[in-house]
Amino acid sequence: MSGKRTTRLTPDQRREQLVGIGLEMLADRSLDELSTDEVARRAGISRGLLFHYFDSKRDFYRAVVSAACDRFTAATEPDGSLEPVAWMRSFIAGFVSYVLEHRQVYLALVRGAAGSHPAVTDIVGATRETLARRVCDGQRRLGMPDAPRLALASRAWMAFAEEAVISWPAEEPGAQDELCAFIESSLVSVLGLLDRPGALTPR
Amino acid sequence: MSGKRTTRLTPDQRREQLVGIGLEMLADRSLDELSTDEVARRAGISRGLLFHYFDSKRDFYRAVVSAACDRFTAATEPDGSLEPVAWMRSFIAGFVSYVLEHRQVYLALVRGAAGSHPAVTDIVGATRETLARRVCDGQRRLGMPDAPRLALASRAWMAFAEEAVISWPAEEPGAQDELCAFIESSLVSVLGLLDRPGALTPR
Repeated sequence: MSGKRTTRLTPDQRREQLVGIGLEMLADRSLDELSTDEVARRAGISRGLLFHYFDSKRDFYRAVVSAACDRFTAATEPDGSLEPVAWMRSFIAGFVSYVLEHRQVYLALVRGAAGSHPAVTDIVGATRETLARRVCDGQRRLGMPDAPRLALASRAWMAFAEEAVISWPAEEPGAQDELCAFIESSLVSVLGLLDRPGALTPR
Repeated sequence: MSGKRTTRLTPDQRREQLVGIGLEMLADRSLDELSTDEVARRAGISRGLLFHYFDSKRDFYRAVVSAACDRFTAATEPDGSLEPVAWMRSFIAGFVSYVLEHRQVYLALVRGAAGSHPAVTDIVGATRETLARRVCDGQRRLGMPDAPRLALASRAWMAFAEEAVISWPAEEPGAQDELCAFIESSLVSVLGLLDRPGALTPR
């Protein structure tokens, strides 16, 4: 049956197709529940053929999570030609929309079982680092001094933003604008603490 | 061998002993790596006897994680008779010291594989909720109005505080005081946003 209209794909196209199916399936299940049998079935190929393209289940999981993380970082990258404030707002707006639109995949990947799945923690960790570095970059664009705790505060603020977006009642009217404003204000106030003389010295 | 000096424990003492061994072992491994064989061996009992006290490996894991979370919430509960500001500072100082002192168990349980281990996510989630509710309680003690987004902002701020404590270079001199001051200032500024007219309305 599945052979009838199987299009001949190049190895790259096939890998991309299989990863795409994996990504779709993550919308309603965790990484542990992502069955390679089911992925192969949806692609109309045998499980054996799937493992021709991926060395192991772990290798397939890593490809799916890498693809999700690449899309996330690409979708939240602001246009480099923007003015500093607009650049930072664009980053926040991109982050908020992406997480809201891909809430299930985000929960499955960045938080919860999959984000800390031993096979993919390094990929998810590197993605968090990329986002935190982007916050630092935004601060530099705004002309803020490179405070000693900036990288750390940016990581902590990203954790804040992540939790806020995930918990926000996004279906209420105006909620997304309100959320962006809250996240922006929190960034300004938290990173502003680094710049306040004496704010970060022992009491 | 192990029988020679085995003390006769009551069932409650035995359960407590086994959970205690599990907690100790979490200091250098994740929940998935916590072997019940090894726990039984350390207690000088058979694996079969361990499963006389716990229905399953899952049941044992839940008991260990519950015990860790109970200790955590108990250790960070401020004295109810303190003045509001001192109460809030005591909560922050307790949270910071506990996470720094039990960094490995904290990482194994609240973050990473174990925190999102399907067997225990509900316990870890309830613990996060307890801490976030305590932040709300602190705000009420301080006479702050019960803002509509207070619970949500408290959860997000707890995620911020968690990340900050875990990443902070705690071995540097004065680092713990500096960290407490940073966390306290961040709480004041982030929750202060809820109270600022217009700060949380759509732009």
